[in-house]
Amino acid sequence: MSPKAAATAETLAAATRNGDRRAASKLISQLESAEPETARAASRAVAALPLPPHTVGLTGPPGAGKSTLVDYLTAILRKRGKRVGVVAVDPSSPFTGGALLGDRIRMSSHRSDTGVFVRSMSNRGATGGLAAAASDTLRVLGGAGFDVVFVETVGAGQAETQVVALADTVCVVQVPGLGDDIQLMKMGILEIADLFVVNKSDRPGARELKLQIEQALGESPGEVCRALRQLGRDFATGYEGPKWMPEVHLLSGLDQKGGDELVDGMLRHRAFLNQPKLAAELTRNRLAREILWRATRRAGDAWEASLAPGGSLRKLVGDCADGKMDLESAVEKVLKAKVKP
Amino acid sequence: MSPKAAATAETLAAATRNGDRRAASKLISQLESAEPETARAASRAVAALPLPPHTVGLTGPPGAGKSTLVDYLTAILRKRGKRVGVVAVDPSSPFTGGALLGDRIRMSSHRSDTGVFVRSMSNRGATGGLAAAASDTLRVLGGAGFDVVFVETVGAGQAETQVVALADTVCVVQVPGLGDDIQLMKMGILEIADLFVVNKSDRPGARELKLQIEQALGESPGEVCRALRQLGRDFATGYEGPKWMPEVHLLSGLDQKGGDELVDGMLRHRAFLNQPKLAAELTRNRLAREILWRATRRAGDAWEASLAPGGSLRKLVGDCADGKMDLESAVEKVLKAKVKP
Repeated sequence: MSPKAAATAETLAAATRNGDRRAASKLISQLESAEPETARAASRAVAALPLPPHTVGLTGPPGAGKSTLVDYLTAILRKRGKRVGVVAVDPSSPFTGGALLGDRIRMSSHRSDTGVFVRSMSNRGATGGLAAAASDTLRVLGGAGFDVVFVETVGAGQAETQVVALADTVCVVQVPGLGDDIQLMKMGILEIADLFVVNKSDRPGARELKLQIEQALGESPGEVCRALRQLGRDFATGYEGPKWMPEVHLLSGLDQKGGDELVDGMLRHRAFLNQPKLAAELTRNRLAREILWRATRRAGDAWEASLAPGGSLRKLVGDCADGKMDLESAVEKVLKAKVKP
Repeated sequence: MSPKAAATAETLAAATRNGDRRAASKLISQLESAEPETARAASRAVAALPLPPHTVGLTGPPGAGKSTLVDYLTAILRKRGKRVGVVAVDPSSPFTGGALLGDRIRMSSHRSDTGVFVRSMSNRGATGGLAAAASDTLRVLGGAGFDVVFVETVGAGQAETQVVALADTVCVVQVPGLGDDIQLMKMGILEIADLFVVNKSDRPGARELKLQIEQALGESPGEVCRALRQLGRDFATGYEGPKWMPEVHLLSGLDQKGGDELVDGMLRHRAFLNQPKLAAELTRNRLAREILWRATRRAGDAWEASLAPGGSLRKLVGDCADGKMDLESAVEKVLKAKVKP
């Protein structure tokens, strides 16, 4: 890695810590740089920045009104004196790409507010890149002193599920009339949500949907912590305190109703996670994930380069194609190749 | 790796090559085993099996009628004497999980037909696992002698886009009235589809949608090959023949109309890819991807194990949590750790 790229990234990271918004913005751009040296240097510099005190994952199907909701919640948190970051994760899918285009031009009501930072990120790149890139971006916002950071995803796909696992509090947004089948929800949503939002609560069926969710929750076993289920529980520290009971909130993002109650719920959940042994367990599990994501991405990038034109392992592909080497031996050769640290 | 697991997997792979359906089924189960030794042994054994002669990626938004369509196309291909495999990729998302539940109980009309093999696969597991696991499954079906294999995904998310890149022919399914915005399609679908299907062609707006797609295609630059765009073109061999012009087909899966024309289009596209230099380029690019996916998954699994309880790198996480080591140093230590081949 070039010493120059490293120096630039370090300078930007230091400025970010001092609350320099433009430095934070530039650092995120460098993280997303197509130039591997630049991206790698930025990722390294960012690793030393802290995660935000409270990350709220917000997910739900397209059309659930997530963007308007985030806008509304941001306004409430600003009134309470919190600095708010928003990371909108665009899975770069041909099908959802359109839906998220709107994100880039939204939040216009907060545009002149230096206490709000909005960033869309997408990643078509290396395997496992999305979660690693999102955790990098979270550290930039944490370093820049934002108190609450929303990570907004469209709830579909493996990579997006991993992103949700980055959040302290997971908020699942539903609307009445979108899916007429409560079965759909039982399959997995109940496992990941700390808070449910029934958005567009003025629509017919909103109260019924809330009841259905509450009923389904009553049937599902309690969890100590949803985040831990996502992360795995490899670093158990023996927490045996009370369990978190997911809350269901009726809300209208458009009419600005119910937001204060939801924000209270979010903060209640954050306070819940602060219980000593639970907090330690969460920190360790999240660090293990982050180390793994970063290592995997770093190795993937290095191997990709080694298989590309001019790369040291390029001959392997030709040998495989010509039948001189089997796939398995090629994989083993790649694994044994030195990954540039 | 235990010699016993390896021997079992090798035996199953050999039986699969002899057309033993139950062996193929068991091999896929072993690929998905929660027991790492078993899964690894299976993946290794499978690497020596050939890919199917024709893999057709089928993607589109939820509700586009993909399942019914696959069922219909399978019937047509069976009449033409082809053996057909279907791999339904379930991204394990709480939001799409429900939609795909139906896949597991569908295709009932082909249940007693030994020339049809249906498998749903999901992967909540390691980073990059979905594409690697799908390519493993494709090799099992190729080894078992299936002529055409459909890989069906819900089009959303990074991992699913990678799965599409495994296919020779990419078929994008749309329906009139689902998204009212053609802009959505322009953003990315045009780049990946070799064939468009306007499904539910009896609905109002079907012909208009077909026209809109054709118009959009007319405005987009031609591609030598969509698959190569997905894979990257690192292994260019100098193909300069004609370009493939994507076709748009009206179809009704429910009324069984238009399927023969679509199947003809799929086979036309497969024939197109067989042009000497193009075929070589595709093979090399796909092999490079597969080597990369396999190596990344293998490394990710090994590192995950090393960070888990009893793992050799577990202390790193504690050191990071206690502030004795920074994240970046931990990542470097993981990268330098030997990956069990």
